[in-house]
Amino acid sequence: MCQLLGMNCNTPTDIVFSFEGFRRRGGLTDHHADGFGIGFFEGRGVRLFHDDKPSANSPVADLVKAYQIKSENVIAHIRKATQGQTSLANTHPFMREMWGGYWLFAHNGHLKNFFPKEGGFYRAVGNTDSERAFCYILEQLRRRFSERPDEHALFDAVAELTAEIREYGLFNFMMSNGECLFAHASTLLHYIVRKAPFGEAHLIDDDVKVDFAAVTTPNDKVAVIATLPLTANETWLQLAVNELVMFREGDIVRRHAPEHPVYMSAEEGLAIARAAGVSV
Amino acid sequence: MCQLLGMNCNTPTDIVFSFEGFRRRGGLTDHHADGFGIGFFEGRGVRLFHDDKPSANSPVADLVKAYQIKSENVIAHIRKATQGQTSLANTHPFMREMWGGYWLFAHNGHLKNFFPKEGGFYRAVGNTDSERAFCYILEQLRRRFSERPDEHALFDAVAELTAEIREYGLFNFMMSNGECLFAHASTLLHYIVRKAPFGEAHLIDDDVKVDFAAVTTPNDKVAVIATLPLTANETWLQLAVNELVMFREGDIVRRHAPEHPVYMSAEEGLAIARAAGVSV
Repeated sequence: MCQLLGMNCNTPTDIVFSFEGFRRRGGLTDHHADGFGIGFFEGRGVRLFHDDKPSANSPVADLVKAYQIKSENVIAHIRKATQGQTSLANTHPFMREMWGGYWLFAHNGHLKNFFPKEGGFYRAVGNTDSERAFCYILEQLRRRFSERPDEHALFDAVAELTAEIREYGLFNFMMSNGECLFAHASTLLHYIVRKAPFGEAHLIDDDVKVDFAAVTTPNDKVAVIATLPLTANETWLQLAVNELVMFREGDIVRRHAPEHPVYMSAEEGLAIARAAGVSV
Repeated sequence: MCQLLGMNCNTPTDIVFSFEGFRRRGGLTDHHADGFGIGFFEGRGVRLFHDDKPSANSPVADLVKAYQIKSENVIAHIRKATQGQTSLANTHPFMREMWGGYWLFAHNGHLKNFFPKEGGFYRAVGNTDSERAFCYILEQLRRRFSERPDEHALFDAVAELTAEIREYGLFNFMMSNGECLFAHASTLLHYIVRKAPFGEAHLIDDDVKVDFAAVTTPNDKVAVIATLPLTANETWLQLAVNELVMFREGDIVRRHAPEHPVYMSAEEGLAIARAAGVSV
């Protein structure tokens, strides 16, 4: 199974601490060793780094660490190839322009026989189910809305499309337009909203800790979303199975959950991924 | 004036040598110090690096050097901001997907009052004349051809659109879909096709030389295209004013030049840029 990492904040924040733990899962503490990608929104622009080397020893990942890019919206992905060959064209996050803004998307899971009719606006370049799902979402949004709709209409449409696509299989994903960040869980997705009073956090995957109080202001609000919790001493919350949320400025502003939410254990989530032929 | 650098080859080639000279024009040997960008096609994928730091001392540019990415098609751009604020969203090369493949575009010049009707398929994210021109070209191509046409139909259409856009001002540009690379000169654009027997080359902007014979095979063919020649001891050819060429596998395979071609001196080219309000 691949792993996802996202960040949505109310002020440009550097993701180095979370990324350090996350990237070690790419080849060191875990087996997601088929490349990685990370996209940072900066204003209306996107800085996108892709690498087909394992993230744990990728010089691109070293740059990400050294550069300490500050962003309000980040999506990262460590890949264990299950669908499509390992190639740059198949490396998440994927990017497209819609309504005059960039969109990023990363997926963890497997959509069986998901081959929607080729889009008039958006087409996949590589050969992953993930990029096809992203293009399908954008294609349908673009057909419904010739201009960018308000946030709530957008959320409702994404929720509808997500429900349609997850019929094909495992569809944990994150998607952002640089303002809001959508996160959907088929199995495992955790999040934490850090805000004042800030404390200290310890990475699970590395002997590193950070005192957020020293690097933030009292108004900062930073949501970090990841497949599995990244820190040992904080309380991460979990998305329910089939729950879709929309973050803006570090808060969940919309959520769409099943009436009777089910929360999956990490063991269960990994077992399901295995059974679906998604390597873990 | 910004500077352009492109490469089109018949085998994946690393651009480090040319890029080393080129990047020094970003802040060291010249004044193109408002950021830079470089895009490498790798298979169907694109590795894109943008930075708003001057290329001469950018850690992203250091990575490009250290990484020695091999590519058959590269487009790079050093920016001296003249239109639109300096921001990541305004940093060339720009990228879009069309017909299921990525396209890169970089521009050097200034299009006066170029505000085409907003596209149904492609819209600018930043606020440069350059990105509007790129989106306009793609929009018109996409309207004419719902599927990717053959190379010659593509060239003819790009030639027609280029003639239309250059009425608005200076339009030196490069554009590539990872197979062919288009280059058009309004003022200055030079190129060299390196092939066997390979010799030694000396950078103009740095005390560096390379023996291409040691790093190539006899079948390699590498076209390098740049605003101004990058090496001192090789014969660079020049595009005529208003000439459009299409490179494939290191050769010019199509060209469209005025009946009576005019070749501009570097001094003339820089003076014209200055007069057009494009800083040099």
